[in-house]
Order: sequence, then C-alpha cells, then structure tokens
Amino acid sequence: MSTHYTTPAVSVDIVLLTLKNQSLHVALHQRQQDPFSGALALPGGYIHTEEDTDLEATAKRVLQQKTGLTPRYLEQLRCFAGPVRDPRGWSVAISYVALIPLEALEQSGNGIFHFFAVDALPALAFDHAAQIQSAVQRVRNKSSYSTLPCWLLPEAFTLTELQRTYEQIFGETLSRGTFRSRLGIKVSDVAPGEAADDAQLLIATDAMKGGAQRPARLFKVNQLGLFRRAWW
Amino acid sequence: MSTHYTTPAVSVDIVLLTLKNQSLHVALHQRQQDPFSGALALPGGYIHTEEDTDLEATAKRVLQQKTGLTPRYLEQLRCFAGPVRDPRGWSVAISYVALIPLEALEQSGNGIFHFFAVDALPALAFDHAAQIQSAVQRVRNKSSYSTLPCWLLPEAFTLTELQRTYEQIFGETLSRGTFRSRLGIKVSDVAPGEAADDAQLLIATDAMKGGAQRPARLFKVNQLGLFRRAWW
Repeated sequence: MSTHYTTPAVSVDIVLLTLKNQSLHVALHQRQQDPFSGALALPGGYIHTEEDTDLEATAKRVLQQKTGLTPRYLEQLRCFAGPVRDPRGWSVAISYVALIPLEALEQSGNGIFHFFAVDALPALAFDHAAQIQSAVQRVRNKSSYSTLPCWLLPEAFTLTELQRTYEQIFGETLSRGTFRSRLGIKVSDVAPGEAADDAQLLIATDAMKGGAQRPARLFKVNQLGLFRRAWW
Repeated sequence: MSTHYTTPAVSVDIVLLTLKNQSLHVALHQRQQDPFSGALALPGGYIHTEEDTDLEATAKRVLQQKTGLTPRYLEQLRCFAGPVRDPRGWSVAISYVALIPLEALEQSGNGIFHFFAVDALPALAFDHAAQIQSAVQRVRNKSSYSTLPCWLLPEAFTLTELQRTYEQIFGETLSRGTFRSRLGIKVSDVAPGEAADDAQLLIATDAMKGGAQRPARLFKVNQLGLFRRAWW
C-alpha cells in the first residue's frame, strides 16, 4: 500500500562532513524502515513545529540526537524537491552542510554513523548523493576564499596542519612556499597574540607542538573571514 | 479565528527583478486577503503536486499566471522558514530570483504589478523584505563575475548599454576604459560573428543601432559565463 502526499512532506537533511584518511568523508547511517530500508542515508528529520524556532534549530536538534554534538559550522545549502526523490510522493528536503572535526566525532562515539569518502560513495537512499555533491562543491568553493577549513581542525593547529587540511579538501598538494604566499602568511615565528597573515585571521597562541621534531607554533583562527587575495 | 499548521505550509515565492529608472526594481502586488490584506507582497504560490514537476516548474507557473512571461533567468535563492514569518504558524517559503527585461514586462502588460526600487521599499507582507535583500545580494555578487546582467537587456545590445546595465545593478559608474578593460574587451569594432572580449562571451551581430549619432554595433551574449578575471 503506498502513501501519497497531497501537500509535500518537508524534511531537513544534513550532510555532515569531516576529514578522515586525508580526504573529505560524509556521515551516513543505515535506514531501519521503508522506503529504502537497509540503504545508507544522510541523517535528517521532520520539522517539529512545537519546538523548533527555525530550520537551523531543526538541523542542530537532529545532529544533537545522532552525535551528541553541535557542529563547528552549519549552513543551509538549498532545497531539493519534487515528485520522484521519495517514492511516497512530492517531498521537499531542505539540505544543510555541517562540519565537525573527526577528533570530536570519535570522542563522542559516533555510534550509528559510518564514514564514506565523498569521492567514492555507495548507493544511497533518496537523492542523498546529489545533496552530498552539492555540499562538497559548496565547501570546496568557500574554502578557496576563506578560513572555512579551520572548522575541520581542532581549535589550535600548526600551519602545516592547516596546509594539509586545505590540500585534503581540494585533493591536491601545494609547496609550503606557495601555500603561505597565497594565504598572505608573512612569517610563521610570530609572537603569541600576533597574526601570521595579512588579513589578521591566524593568531599565534602561546603553545607549541612537537616532540623530537622542531616544535611548531599553534595558531587559532580569528573568525570566518576572507583572505585579501583570491587563491587556489 | 486563527489557523495553525501542524506540518509547515510550503510556498514558492518569487523576487522578480528588472531595471527601471536606472536602478533595480522588484515586482510587487497588493494582497487581496488576510494575512496582510492590502499590503504589498511578492508573487508566490503553493506547490501543485498533481502538475508541478519540480520547484522551478512551480516558480514558472506562478510567473506565467501573473505576467504571461517566462523569465530570462531563474535561480533558487534559499529557504526562509519559521514560526513567525506567517501569523498562521510555521511556514516554509522557497525563494526564487527571476530576471525579466523591463521591455518585455511593459509589452505583456504587467497588470497587477507595481515596481519599486529595491533600495527604497515600502512596508511588505511576511518576510518579503528579507527575501528581496537576499535576491539583490545574489544578483550583485553574480554580476561581479559573469554576464548575468545581460538577462536584463534585450537580446541584442550595444556595449554602452551593457556598461549602463552593470552600473545600474551596482549603483556606481565607471569610465568606459575601465569597464572595457575589466571585461577584457579588446576593441569594439569587431566583425559580425566575432567576439569583442577575451572570454568570447560578447558576440557581434551584423546589426547597428543609432540614428543621428555614430552608429554602434549590436552584440549578443554567448552564454551565461565567467569572465577570465575577477572584476568590480
């Protein structure tokens, strides 16, 4: 027996991305009920009109229930809608992209989630492959002109770790000199509280990292901002 | 007596922009029923699940009914949703931006529409002011790296008309030399079928325009594309 909607069902779906094994991965869980029972899918949920103050609240509630975590970054992607994405009939999915560092996910015990490389996805429920593709494109675009990749790192990081993060998002490597020149990083041995870059976004902490190797300064990001020159 | 939705109502709202009196204007109509009866509002409608093949089809159907026209450009903006935008309860509005040249709107007889400068809006129903602001920002951003403004011109236009269109979207003027240099326009007296610019987007037609003044070549745009260098 099929159920047909006369007014479209509305859900909020979340593309939760993290960096794992040096590449972007997405969190998927296995569906326990039809449609697509047994298939891998994005986490999502219906709007709870009696408690959700807006769509972002719906997205955060769903993530909190599935991971116990609040995302470092959350942004509305777009609406995916139509009569065929859900076999039960016309539906509207409002898609969100969320970023959580792997460290936090592993500490909270990501229970129901399996992580898959975004460039090697298995068969998925609904139109979730299209949603993931859209989210990855947004993250890659935004990473080319901002400090977005910082939300996939711990709060404090070395400049080398920052470079690796950008490289892993784009799937390409850069020489250290080129990377630092593009971000406007003048010199890396700056004093605590001082910025390493032109745009004053990468602020040195008073902590260092590294044992046997030469210790490296740890930095924090000032804000999600724009680097002065377009790059990558 | 108020009506409360338990599952959110879903509408598609359209920010129809055009250039009038040398600045961006938005099409508004006066609401005939509550809520906000008598107030100015964006055109919009509910999804007709029995006939609409997707959200774009809903947007086109609404525009067709209100203007008899198909937009030259139509793009999904984002979802505006929550419990307060509509006094009847939780609602979801999927916002679209559409561009139609003023010439076409005036020929079709825009009946129910009034056009208001986007920088001088009256009080509006729902959250339509926020939707318009978002649409204008999208159009200005995209205009800074593409030929989007061409969709507000007739199919064939002079390079001076093109310059005025960009200037009116941004609300600032440029010297002719600066404008042409930024678009990579080498020289304007190119042969029919040849491109005036580096990116091969502005193609000369075999027609000219202008009476008493020096006649100017008419151009058509090749496609919505990217100019090779970022500008403006």
